[in-house]
Formats: sequence, structure tokens, C-alpha cells
Amino acid sequence: MKGAQYLLIPGPTPIPLRVARAMDRPMINHRGLEFKNIIEEVIDGVKKIYRTKEHLLIYPASGTGGLEAAVSNFICPGDKVLAISIGVFGDRFAEIAANFGGRVEKMEFAWGSGADPERVKARIDQDKNGEIKAVLITHNETSTGAFNDLKSIREAMGDHPALIMVDAVSGLAAIDLRMDEWGLDVVVSGSQKAFMIPPGLSFMAFNEKALKVQQKNPNSRYYWDVGMGLQYQEKGQTAFTPPISLYYGLQEAIRMMLEEGLENILVRHANYRDMVRASVREMGLELFTEDRFASCAVTSIRAPKDIGANRIRKYMLEEFNTILAGGQQSLDDVIFRLGHLGYIRELDLVSVLAALELTLVKCKHKLELGAGVKKAQEFLLNSHNAQAD
Amino acid sequence: MKGAQYLLIPGPTPIPLRVARAMDRPMINHRGLEFKNIIEEVIDGVKKIYRTKEHLLIYPASGTGGLEAAVSNFICPGDKVLAISIGVFGDRFAEIAANFGGRVEKMEFAWGSGADPERVKARIDQDKNGEIKAVLITHNETSTGAFNDLKSIREAMGDHPALIMVDAVSGLAAIDLRMDEWGLDVVVSGSQKAFMIPPGLSFMAFNEKALKVQQKNPNSRYYWDVGMGLQYQEKGQTAFTPPISLYYGLQEAIRMMLEEGLENILVRHANYRDMVRASVREMGLELFTEDRFASCAVTSIRAPKDIGANRIRKYMLEEFNTILAGGQQSLDDVIFRLGHLGYIRELDLVSVLAALELTLVKCKHKLELGAGVKKAQEFLLNSHNAQAD
Repeated sequence: MKGAQYLLIPGPTPIPLRVARAMDRPMINHRGLEFKNIIEEVIDGVKKIYRTKEHLLIYPASGTGGLEAAVSNFICPGDKVLAISIGVFGDRFAEIAANFGGRVEKMEFAWGSGADPERVKARIDQDKNGEIKAVLITHNETSTGAFNDLKSIREAMGDHPALIMVDAVSGLAAIDLRMDEWGLDVVVSGSQKAFMIPPGLSFMAFNEKALKVQQKNPNSRYYWDVGMGLQYQEKGQTAFTPPISLYYGLQEAIRMMLEEGLENILVRHANYRDMVRASVREMGLELFTEDRFASCAVTSIRAPKDIGANRIRKYMLEEFNTILAGGQQSLDDVIFRLGHLGYIRELDLVSVLAALELTLVKCKHKLELGAGVKKAQEFLLNSHNAQAD
Repeated sequence: MKGAQYLLIPGPTPIPLRVARAMDRPMINHRGLEFKNIIEEVIDGVKKIYRTKEHLLIYPASGTGGLEAAVSNFICPGDKVLAISIGVFGDRFAEIAANFGGRVEKMEFAWGSGADPERVKARIDQDKNGEIKAVLITHNETSTGAFNDLKSIREAMGDHPALIMVDAVSGLAAIDLRMDEWGLDVVVSGSQKAFMIPPGLSFMAFNEKALKVQQKNPNSRYYWDVGMGLQYQEKGQTAFTPPISLYYGLQEAIRMMLEEGLENILVRHANYRDMVRASVREMGLELFTEDRFASCAVTSIRAPKDIGANRIRKYMLEEFNTILAGGQQSLDDVIFRLGHLGYIRELDLVSVLAALELTLVKCKHKLELGAGVKKAQEFLLNSHNAQAD
């Protein structure tokens, strides 16, 4: 029996039973006291995950909606925008900014790598007149499995007055992010990743510096308007009818996250990354991303050329009911991506790595059956021993 | 024991168990075959409820998001817009259009009434040069419990080339709406009303005439862009990660709606309206809206002045765990609103009417206890007899 599906894509991620049960509650009045208490608890909780004491709004939207909220509030038409891109989602953020009248200068880095703070510093240092109003950057680039070192990038900007705006949709709570300590001005995230709830909510945190820009921003907006959102939040309400069931789920997920502890969550994700990388290397597969840029949320693996990534994914689905993500755009059929963020157990990963070995054997890839899984087991043995010490 | 809550507000509405169970399923790949089948089934089903064969997109958003989608795609900056308003939500639609650069001319009607097609016709006839590009109108005005006769309003426009854009967020499937037959160009709706699922999805249907306007529209947009939405829909996908659990719920709700039959659903809502109105009249209460404008989705009731609407609502909540809506803006404490749309049983309404009588007695309103409930029972007797014939 294949049984229930293994879903290992970089979002949506599996839903814990506790969250599913919490969501399965009756509707209530979204302008009543009971819901006010939920709003206050989740805003407070999500801020803890952001490590921020600044403003935070929750939108009924996909992650992309949160990015549009960021752009329409904090980038004024005609503003010069430096958009750092290391893949598909960096390109998307740049495209949204351009659609809203930003004069976008793209700074691209090879897919599979993170942005180089030195190059960012050189460009920022050139901008003596402060023409650049915003720097856009992706936290975790889901399309390649690389992440950006936000702390170094922010440091590279020094005293430059531009806002730094971060797409952390798939990275937050999987990879370290300290909004206030690092001086990040705007950070957008989503519900269907490390937050372990279904898609449909987007989070946007922003500080006073960003709010000042917002107040003078003439962009057309209503749904995304930060002013209106904050006004309702003061009353313990949302500006528009909120997705109540997703708020129930978020409330429970936040409780689970705070019980586990943010530090432990980050260590868990880093361990999963290291375990998966060690194991697939042992299978003779090549990783798409260098170790120093490797994401804790998703791992991109090059398929052997004579097999192709999509054949591996097809076999994994048909024979083992396991969903892996494919490559996007030029990486289609070149890489496959194994998501390990959110509510994934370590033994789930062992199972899926075992299935991957079997799939590779079936596709006549040369490897020693069991060696990759053993590597994962060794990794687990070490990490369990370390915890016991 | 008070037990589970009676939620009788005009959205969110109670969730049927079948829908709740459907939503409580694991996440799946939103770009896979299984989800493609769901998308196709729900698009087809929602179109049936709209009575349209035109385009339909589903946004991860509140109803207001759908209205912003309509404005940002179909109203060009500088366009003259005739915004018909009969209450708070008519005002909101006008405000969104103004925020996106529409030159809005408001045509207001007294709260509690519907728009007069003659006045609309007179204004449209004046516009010899076709300066007006869009007419905005609300289907069901949730704030007052009045509805607009869309068929007559559309007829009043005759051959005028302006688009007619309808906010049907709370009205669709509770009050008759025939998009294609009546010639409505853009119709927006939401999930948390007669569709019986939690908030978080907004539907927007539009025809080819609207699409032609959209293709020349220079408004800044990305998330709401109809072109991108249609492009992904052709592949059986959504442009951005969809709220998967809400799609599960929508799929089940649509099946329930098609089993019941749209005609029967509309009769049910009309019956609820008539039953509630007859019953509260018998209690000596005054209705805010004349019979000819009375909504099938929500009934607005004037509270006796010496009691006040909010005292009635407070007592209903504390003593009978029943949530009614209050009045908005100038109607605060003047009216209370009883929502009877979506998954409400006829006997639920009997219970709540009984509680309302008890509340009125407690507040020293003069009435014969039981008379209002008896009126409701008589209504049910007649309608059950009619069905049996």
C-alpha cells in the first residue's frame, strides 16, 4: 500500500493535525470579541517569528499579494529601485515594482548562488545622491534553493537611506531572519510555508521609516492600503472580512511554533538541509547550489542528464505517491527540488530518500542501494547523540 | 444549555458539515493534475451560479479584493464613472473607483430603498457623447437590507456603451442574477455568503466587452491582472498559490448547491425573507426597508427607540448565544440586521425569532409572547403545504 501522499514541495506544506482540527470550527462574527482576541494573539505571535516590534498586517491573499502590498505602499511611481535577483522570485518582485511605476535596475546573480554583498556595496556607494529609494531582495529563492545573507546585504547598504524590502515568503522561520536587529524595513511572508497552514494569508511587517514613505505615496490602492489596515487593527479588527478558518489555523500553528521554539525550528530546518544534501551526494547526484548558499527550506538536485528530472518526479509520484517539485523556466527537467520546510518529520525524509534511491536504480543510475539512506541515518544518529549530550 | 452559536449575520455564514469535512483534507501540489481537476470543476460550477458562459477568475482575497480587481482591470484612470449607491457598500465601490483615478459621479438613493431605474435612464440619456465609461451598482446592499433590480437598471442603460459592473458579493445565489441574459459585464462575488464556505475567496466574472477595455487599461496591477489569470487558467492552474482548503470547500459547496438547484435556493432565500418579515411585524417591530426593495439575504429591523438596537443584540448574545449584526454608520443602534443567507435552516430562524420575542419582553417592549413565532409557523405550514401539492 502506498497510502497517504508525501508532499515535499516548497509550499504548500503538510498541515499538522492540531492545525487541521483548529481550522475545523464554526464561523464566528469577525467583528466580535472572540475574533478580536484571535487577531491580537496571532499578530503578537507572528511578530515574534519575525523578531520584530514594528507593525504587522495580515492580508487575505497569496504571498504575491503581500509583495504587491509592499510595492504599492512603499515604492512611489518614478522611484529608482535596485532589485537584486537570484532567480524566478527575485524577477517577480522586480516585475511587480516595475508594474507600479518603479524605475527598476536589476542586479542579477547566477542562479544557484546568493547575492554578493560586495557588489551591492559598490553599487550603493556609487549612489552619492541617494537616488535609489528601495532595495528589493529575496530571503529564500525557492526556484533555485539558494538563500541571501540578508544581514550582510543590509550591512552593505550602510547609512544609505533606501528602504530594504524583503520577500521572505518561503524563508521565514526556516532560515534566520531578524527584522529589527538587522534593520530590515519591510518583510513579506506567507502562510503555506514554515507556518504550516494552508495558503491564503500573507504577512507584511514594516517599520516607521517605511510608514513615512507610505504616507506620501500616491499609488492607487485600497485593498492593500496600510493606513486603513492599521486603523482597523487598532480596534482589534481587520479592514476586510478575514479568512476566519485560516486565522484559526494560524493561531494553533503559532502556539506550536512557540512551544517548539524559534531557535529549535531553525536548527531543525538546517539539519534537514544537511541530511538531504549528504544523502543525495552519496547517491552520486550533484547539488545545484553550493553549500554556502544552500537553503534550509528546499534543496535543488541536478538529475543525471540521461534520466531527466521529470522522469524521476513521475516515477516518485506513480510508484511512491511522493510529490517533488520540478525546475522552473530554464531549469525545467534539469533539476528537481525537495522541499523540507514546515511540518515534515525527519523519518519522512528518510522514507523519501529511500524512494529516491529506488527510483534511481529503476532508472539505471549507478549507485549502491541503501548507501544514501545510511548516510541520512548516520546524520540522524549524530544529531540525536548531540541532543542527548 | 445555550449550546452552539446561532450566527445570523450577512456573512460569514455557517459552514455545512459536508463542506467542513471536505476542507479538512491534506494539502496537495497546486500545480498538479488533482488540483487542475478541482479548478475546472469549481470554475464550471461557479459559472452556473452566475448563469454565465463568460470568463470567471477566482482570487485569494476578501470580496473587497474582488472589487479592486474589477476597478483596476476595467476602469481606466480618468474614466467617468457613474456610481449608484444605496448604502455603505455602494459608497465603498465608488471609493475604490475614485482611488484608482476614476472620475466618479455618485448617484445616491435613500438608504433602505433600491435605485430607481427611471433616474438612471434619465442620466444615461443625457450622456449623448458616451462620456460615462462604467456604471457601478450593488446587487444586495448588506448595510440596509435592500437590493437593486439589476435587470431594470441594465435595461435603463439601453444601448449606452458603458460597462455595468456589479458588486454581488452578498447577493449572488440569494437573489436572482442572470449575468448573460441581463447583459451584465462584470460581476464580483465572495465565498462567505450564499456559497456557504469561509471567507477568503472572491469571484469575478466578466465578458468579452469588458476584456477589450482591460487590454488597453494602463492601471498598475499584478496580483489582480486578468490577463495573467486567464493565461494560467488555460493551463488548469492559478497565477498564484491558491487557498487550497477553501477550494476543497468550494468544490463541495458547489455540489450541494447544484443538488439543491439554483431555483430552489432562490425560493428558499425569498421564503426566509418573507417569514422573518411577517414574524417581526407581528412583534410590533418596524422594518427598515419597504417590501418591494427587501433583500432575500438580510433583513434590517428598526429597534424600538426606547430600547436601542445594540441592547437587543447584546441580550441576544448573552442570553441566547445568537449573533445578529448591528447598523453601520448613521444606523448604529437604530437597526439590527438578521442575516438569513447561506446554510441556515428554517427551524433555526424559528428559534431565533423565539429568542427575539423573549428579548423584547425582557426589554419591556409590548407584545404578545408567541405571536411572532406563530406567524413564522403559519408561514412554514403554507410553504410546506405548497411544496406537497
